[in-house]
Amino acid sequence: MAMALRRLAGASAGGSPSPAAAAAALLLRPALARPISTDFREERDTFGPIQVPNDKLWGAQTQRSLQNFDIGGERERMPVPIIRAFGVLKKCAAKVNMEYGLDPTIGKAIIQAAQEVAEGQLDDHFPLVIWQTGSGTQSNMNANEVIANRASEILGHKRGEKFVHPNDHVNRSQSSNDTFPTVMHIAAATEINSRFVPSLEQLQKSLHSKSVEFQDIIKIGRTHTQDATPLTLGQEFSGYATQVKYGIDRIVRTLPRMYQLAQGGTAVGTGLNTKKGFDVKIADAVAEETELPFVTAENKFEALAAHDAFVESSGAVNTISASLMKIGNDIRLLGSGPRCGLGELNLPENEPGSSIMPGKVNPTQCEALTMVCAQVMGNHVGVTVGGSNGHFELNVFKPMIVAGLLRSLRLLGDASVSFEKNCVRGIQANHRRISQLLHESLMLVTCLNPKIGYDNAAAVAKKAHKEGTTLKEAALSFGVLTEKEFDELVVPEKMIGPSD
Amino acid sequence: MAMALRRLAGASAGGSPSPAAAAAALLLRPALARPISTDFREERDTFGPIQVPNDKLWGAQTQRSLQNFDIGGERERMPVPIIRAFGVLKKCAAKVNMEYGLDPTIGKAIIQAAQEVAEGQLDDHFPLVIWQTGSGTQSNMNANEVIANRASEILGHKRGEKFVHPNDHVNRSQSSNDTFPTVMHIAAATEINSRFVPSLEQLQKSLHSKSVEFQDIIKIGRTHTQDATPLTLGQEFSGYATQVKYGIDRIVRTLPRMYQLAQGGTAVGTGLNTKKGFDVKIADAVAEETELPFVTAENKFEALAAHDAFVESSGAVNTISASLMKIGNDIRLLGSGPRCGLGELNLPENEPGSSIMPGKVNPTQCEALTMVCAQVMGNHVGVTVGGSNGHFELNVFKPMIVAGLLRSLRLLGDASVSFEKNCVRGIQANHRRISQLLHESLMLVTCLNPKIGYDNAAAVAKKAHKEGTTLKEAALSFGVLTEKEFDELVVPEKMIGPSD
Amino acid sequence: MAMALRRLAGASAGGSPSPAAAAAALLLRPALARPISTDFREERDTFGPIQVPNDKLWGAQTQRSLQNFDIGGERERMPVPIIRAFGVLKKCAAKVNMEYGLDPTIGKAIIQAAQEVAEGQLDDHFPLVIWQTGSGTQSNMNANEVIANRASEILGHKRGEKFVHPNDHVNRSQSSNDTFPTVMHIAAATEINSRFVPSLEQLQKSLHSKSVEFQDIIKIGRTHTQDATPLTLGQEFSGYATQVKYGIDRIVRTLPRMYQLAQGGTAVGTGLNTKKGFDVKIADAVAEETELPFVTAENKFEALAAHDAFVESSGAVNTISASLMKIGNDIRLLGSGPRCGLGELNLPENEPGSSIMPGKVNPTQCEALTMVCAQVMGNHVGVTVGGSNGHFELNVFKPMIVAGLLRSLRLLGDASVSFEKNCVRGIQANHRRISQLLHESLMLVTCLNPKIGYDNAAAVAKKAHKEGTTLKEAALSFGVLTEKEFDELVVPEKMIGPSD
Amino acid sequence: MAMALRRLAGASAGGSPSPAAAAAALLLRPALARPISTDFREERDTFGPIQVPNDKLWGAQTQRSLQNFDIGGERERMPVPIIRAFGVLKKCAAKVNMEYGLDPTIGKAIIQAAQEVAEGQLDDHFPLVIWQTGSGTQSNMNANEVIANRASEILGHKRGEKFVHPNDHVNRSQSSNDTFPTVMHIAAATEINSRFVPSLEQLQKSLHSKSVEFQDIIKIGRTHTQDATPLTLGQEFSGYATQVKYGIDRIVRTLPRMYQLAQGGTAVGTGLNTKKGFDVKIADAVAEETELPFVTAENKFEALAAHDAFVESSGAVNTISASLMKIGNDIRLLGSGPRCGLGELNLPENEPGSSIMPGKVNPTQCEALTMVCAQVMGNHVGVTVGGSNGHFELNVFKPMIVAGLLRSLRLLGDASVSFEKNCVRGIQANHRRISQLLHESLMLVTCLNPKIGYDNAAAVAKKAHKEGTTLKEAALSFGVLTEKEFDELVVPEKMIGPSD
Repeated sequence: MAMALRRLAGASAGGSPSPAAAAAALLLRPALARPISTDFREERDTFGPIQVPNDKLWGAQTQRSLQNFDIGGERERMPVPIIRAFGVLKKCAAKVNMEYGLDPTIGKAIIQAAQEVAEGQLDDHFPLVIWQTGSGTQSNMNANEVIANRASEILGHKRGEKFVHPNDHVNRSQSSNDTFPTVMHIAAATEINSRFVPSLEQLQKSLHSKSVEFQDIIKIGRTHTQDATPLTLGQEFSGYATQVKYGIDRIVRTLPRMYQLAQGGTAVGTGLNTKKGFDVKIADAVAEETELPFVTAENKFEALAAHDAFVESSGAVNTISASLMKIGNDIRLLGSGPRCGLGELNLPENEPGSSIMPGKVNPTQCEALTMVCAQVMGNHVGVTVGGSNGHFELNVFKPMIVAGLLRSLRLLGDASVSFEKNCVRGIQANHRRISQLLHESLMLVTCLNPKIGYDNAAAVAKKAHKEGTTLKEAALSFGVLTEKEFDELVVPEKMIGPSD
Repeated sequence: MAMALRRLAGASAGGSPSPAAAAAALLLRPALARPISTDFREERDTFGPIQVPNDKLWGAQTQRSLQNFDIGGERERMPVPIIRAFGVLKKCAAKVNMEYGLDPTIGKAIIQAAQEVAEGQLDDHFPLVIWQTGSGTQSNMNANEVIANRASEILGHKRGEKFVHPNDHVNRSQSSNDTFPTVMHIAAATEINSRFVPSLEQLQKSLHSKSVEFQDIIKIGRTHTQDATPLTLGQEFSGYATQVKYGIDRIVRTLPRMYQLAQGGTAVGTGLNTKKGFDVKIADAVAEETELPFVTAENKFEALAAHDAFVESSGAVNTISASLMKIGNDIRLLGSGPRCGLGELNLPENEPGSSIMPGKVNPTQCEALTMVCAQVMGNHVGVTVGGSNGHFELNVFKPMIVAGLLRSLRLLGDASVSFEKNCVRGIQANHRRISQLLHESLMLVTCLNPKIGYDNAAAVAKKAHKEGTTLKEAALSFGVLTEKEFDELVVPEKMIGPSD
Repeated sequence: MAMALRRLAGASAGGSPSPAAAAAALLLRPALARPISTDFREERDTFGPIQVPNDKLWGAQTQRSLQNFDIGGERERMPVPIIRAFGVLKKCAAKVNMEYGLDPTIGKAIIQAAQEVAEGQLDDHFPLVIWQTGSGTQSNMNANEVIANRASEILGHKRGEKFVHPNDHVNRSQSSNDTFPTVMHIAAATEINSRFVPSLEQLQKSLHSKSVEFQDIIKIGRTHTQDATPLTLGQEFSGYATQVKYGIDRIVRTLPRMYQLAQGGTAVGTGLNTKKGFDVKIADAVAEETELPFVTAENKFEALAAHDAFVESSGAVNTISASLMKIGNDIRLLGSGPRCGLGELNLPENEPGSSIMPGKVNPTQCEALTMVCAQVMGNHVGVTVGGSNGHFELNVFKPMIVAGLLRSLRLLGDASVSFEKNCVRGIQANHRRISQLLHESLMLVTCLNPKIGYDNAAAVAKKAHKEGTTLKEAALSFGVLTEKEFDELVVPEKMIGPSD
Repeated sequence: MAMALRRLAGASAGGSPSPAAAAAALLLRPALARPISTDFREERDTFGPIQVPNDKLWGAQTQRSLQNFDIGGERERMPVPIIRAFGVLKKCAAKVNMEYGLDPTIGKAIIQAAQEVAEGQLDDHFPLVIWQTGSGTQSNMNANEVIANRASEILGHKRGEKFVHPNDHVNRSQSSNDTFPTVMHIAAATEINSRFVPSLEQLQKSLHSKSVEFQDIIKIGRTHTQDATPLTLGQEFSGYATQVKYGIDRIVRTLPRMYQLAQGGTAVGTGLNTKKGFDVKIADAVAEETELPFVTAENKFEALAAHDAFVESSGAVNTISASLMKIGNDIRLLGSGPRCGLGELNLPENEPGSSIMPGKVNPTQCEALTMVCAQVMGNHVGVTVGGSNGHFELNVFKPMIVAGLLRSLRLLGDASVSFEKNCVRGIQANHRRISQLLHESLMLVTCLNPKIGYDNAAAVAKKAHKEGTTLKEAALSFGVLTEKEFDELVVPEKMIGPSD
């Protein structure tokens, strides 16, 4: 019990760090935010008895993992969408198992308990970190133990009594090796559908609206970061909107492989210990429960041994991060200033940028967004490395892979919404500045070619560049055309599309 | 001319490296493999005249790039598929330009010259490296100059005379900013269709054949790299075949965005200097020429300013590299031995593994394949970083992005074929070893549970494990069942699928 | 106030997500673990008044950030070592500012409040996430506001009164642009010294001990995963110990640049608003407080605009992750089995591997460690991308960069300790298996070359390989040497080092 | 012979690609640049006889590799520095072997032949690609075979006769497993010292010179890409120069581990088949030959099984690429314009930027440099993945690892020189523009605080911002100070450093 207590208090139970390190650990570790339970009960597994905090529903295997994997602390807990997906899966498994003979009283209690997990009522009973066994077995047992104890309570029995058994009842016909990949797919597909895509759609619509709003504002184009021929601000934003639209396509097109569930493969993909048809029934049940088109995986060996579907979806998210990095960078540069930058856009002021200088609006939403993009690119490499490292019948980088993708989805989705709400929506064109830059630009000289010839046009532009004058001043000084002619010819409005 | 000579000789024309560095450069640089032209002609651009080797078709701008970007040497030349795609594009552009008024004599000569480029007859006239201007302008001008000079010759004029003009004729209605993205897409889509996918298909078929060939060979499964329940060797290979099949799906599903061509966007995406309809006509011409369903990009601003389509396709290739890394690792481990490894597979012997030890077959094809996979993962990061770094109307990481994807496609395609031909095709099952391991495995004890109960079964397994005996020896020593009963119950064949 | 409430409840305050998304958000978000404060006070900044929860010490700018950056939720809070480092820095700044005229009463109160932050007593008052402004300004203001309010309380004033002012007093002579890089360096250097290096040392010592323990156990070597010439198990572990030893060197050698502090550069690196010598004094104070050899950065422009020191240190951690990936993989494969793998090592059993099969010990510590390594490789890419994206006088990927490195340090340090304590320390050699494999190996035939010639030796080995016999059986069957001669010649002990 | 011919012609010798793919291959493959030898001789290895082109020095094992690894074509050949390093190593090995009894006639001939390899005279005889066996065995045999045949010729014998034997003489006391890591280290250390560091030094000096040249030019600072307090252009460039200076430190500090040579470890690290002292002698010989401080690796097991030294050095190069990406981006943005960008720097014009617009100078050197940086970041991930994937006594990603680092070194070194020579050296400050922006900036208002108070100063700035006037106009319009007072107070020169 002393050990359990020590562990719960966050202290490292073993090793012999130097006194300096110990002192530093004291200094740097978070203070304990919550009172420690001092009341324990005994739970057992095949390794024997172990003390578990009485106010928690988890059992022996969860407690062992907690003690054996002191890695990263509370922030590194298994992501919440995984916990919820376990609730969904265990509920569906109980339903299907009842068709195959599971006692209905026990089945119904499991369904009720699993529903509580799915709804997030029992999140505090899932203390394990990502960095555990690579099959996610310990989180599967955490779910089994919590649901078994809760279902037992519902039926009037005590925690730890195993009236409802974590393995025999809750995990019936299942193996960690097929449940964990199944919850990985449920969690990722749900996050993509319910949060990530709607977030991107919100951003896409907003960028598209701006594209329409700005369709008549002609501005200087820039290639190689240098002045180029003009386009409309609306055209520029249409490029951004298209990038995000394609991004939505990209992630959606990866879903068919994410909708394939490994459940029914059990330990190595063969389906040992299941009845024929179990795999299809459970995929149907999950599909009904989630209203997403899940199906059973056509090849269970692939579904356990590889997580290519995650590498693929992470690749789509990586592409979206490249798009948003570009958009975030453009907007901050177009909004740079107020006096010494490009200054074509006025970005919303959300917080004081400086206590000294009015007009100093830092593009903080661009900054948060692009930081997220960089992290997503990193996570993608982690997911790729993990995905490439399966051995034989099982890839054992599962928790890392799913946590990496879920974090990317959450961060990029949230950052897209924040960027839309606190930046894009409020962007205003700085008409005066846009017009000034457009008309100062030397590249409008192109319009004079047909009238005065390339050589004369070049001479005009060179003179203006050298002397720092406007094109018109330079052109008139040569006497090759009149002011009226100049004004009729040099018309940016004619430069923003193909000619008839 | 001295400068041109020096440059052609590969020596650094400027800077003042230390004598040691210079000596080392002498030591480490490749010896000149080819005689240097000593005959030069003058070519001109807006910067003035410049000496160009007389036996080369390129012009002034190519020569300038050669001198200004001494980065990496010959191996870093723009990939050949880009050169060929320029041939295709310039041919199509001439055709369409003739519809819009290009002189047919000149147009036909351009078509003939461009065809020679497309067929690879003029590869030696494209000396520029990847590491040039980020818009690929210099390679576009290289194509324009070579085709103009060659077309001039066809029409009986001299090189450098510009009877056919690189800009006015060959590059008519085009900008580097839309041609280079267009050839990027043509080159990548062609490589994917004509080499990469067929290579994967060859591998997929071979893995599938092995899966069928091995369908009756029951073997021990391994999860967490530890002994687990059995499966067939065919099932194991079916997982590999499925991974590659999905990989083909993955890359193919990215093609719709790769088929979008930027051509017609010209400098900033607006299509300035083109006629309406030019973009559609040229996409049609390219589609006809390549027999691939190219279309004009729906948004030209996105098509110039971002290369998300490359980040996306590179992501699919990255996923495939994760799959092949897994397959290559499994096969080398399953073939490890001959005495002290797993030894379940006999891999083909392609070369001496050791001058001492017979039977030492190094899994060299697995090694080449997995090295390629690691490089592909790296290239993907490069492509992602480049793809995220566009500014305003133009992404200027174009040559790096396309070279990265093309190298990944070529290497992974070639390695897949080599791996198939020199390894997978010749893999044989080591029946004796597979059977021996299967029957030694303790995990078959699972079959006894229904007959003798879990506790007795566990006792049997523990005894066998402790004493190093077979399960049967241990079971019989307990007297809980007869040899006949044991042989009837412990049947791996019943463990390789769900029960009825 | 309604808005503040909504935000505290975790609900998105803006946008209009679809009802489905909203429902899903309800399903998937963590349930609220803590009661919501219903009591608010008004705080002000240059944007005006804002409601802040009365039980929190933070002020207006923190509250604004909380509302403007709803990205990722609680798990994405700024890492704790950054908060503590702010405590250290603000304490030191108050000390030095007192030398330059800061009122001693206020100075001492700041020192006391900052000390509470440094000790972790006020962690709950730092609610901001990593994904905020890229300069970390909002976390700097969070520190200023908390310390100012706490110091005001110490002096008998109310929160929000600004008796001690967050900018004028706590942030005196500082800018976010120099304080945030400074706390980045303090936090990283402290974590490296107090947790990361000691963790690696613990692992290194343990691997070295095993190397000594196993120094007389001769085993088969494996190259290309194939049987090769023998070595001792101690030699094999000496390679691992050396990798970790060099890893410690690698991270330590990056510290000189991590010890350089930006403080004193203020807004753009010039030191505007500081007095001469301020930079040196504050580096000295931090050095004294932390007992680490911090110095003032020799070039403040580099120190604000780039974070190469983080890319560099992250590169060292990345190298260590490559080392530990290799070690983790080797140990799990050497421990594979129990019957159908290599089986040379017995790994400690920490939890049930399977409810069925005795002896199924999953190498779970290897799995946690290698998952961490993959994540560290990913984080390194994120840090690199962020580090490369500075613009002009400020890199604004700071929070992402520091959070990435700190997470890598924490995870890899913790995983090293867990791996050492729960795996390496308890590894036992499986003498019987090691000896069996060694003596079955065909490659010992090499020893016969001098006696019977290469051709005969090869014939012996080929016969043994083909017929599945031992080398001795094959050799004796040829009649080329006696059993005694064989036993004298074939001596693995003579094969584990150079000859005299 | 037919097969050899087919292979030499670049055609795939096996598989049955679709006709379409075959046609495409014809279309896309480079045309054969060189005549094919039609004259062959027979060479033999333990696999039997094989036809080899008579004009080449390589032997049977090289020829087999050429046929078995048709991956990537000529551009994927083993990097030249590796070939040269083989020359150095084999020369040194012959010297040391003569001390241990190698026949001096043969030894001297080997030394002469190896010297020719080291000098690059025989580069054309090294046709193998990177993507071969992961130990580099085939390139080692390529070196052995070429040197043996050349040495035989020197002694008056024929190619293929094996008067000087590739294994017994040239490879004496060596294994591929220690020679290949040794040449990896020799090649990388030589490239770093002789090309990479001098290239960075050239860039560093140039940036430093610019820093001095620009020390009196005061300009607006930019943080968050927004206007901030001023600094000198010299200070800005001092940040760049410092980044590169530290970059040189970073790569140099990784050399101690790169100077450790594996030679003497032979097959698995034990040194079997060498005499005591061989490892030290050969390291001494290499040190003498290269004038670099090579030493024998303190742990040969680490030196064969891991390539952490490469992951480490690649990490330093990755850091440098992050630095140069920042510098390249800054310079292109500071040089953006000529009219509609920041325009503070005039970059050298090296080639026509546009045929239309004078003054359009594309920052092409920045573009080449930053593209290289992105590729280096990608290569670093490849090297990391390869470095983490060693198994047991040998890492078999060696050729990929070394080729990745060598390519990064070459590209980044060459790009640094090109960037220095063609860009940095010629950068000029646009004094007029810098001054104009500085004096338009609102942030100079800070200087008025002491005179007119913060509130009045803020009102002045707000008025100027709102009305688009200068600060002075706004200040005078309030009547709070005179023009003379304004001119005395608002002095940027006082804002570029700490005060006394």
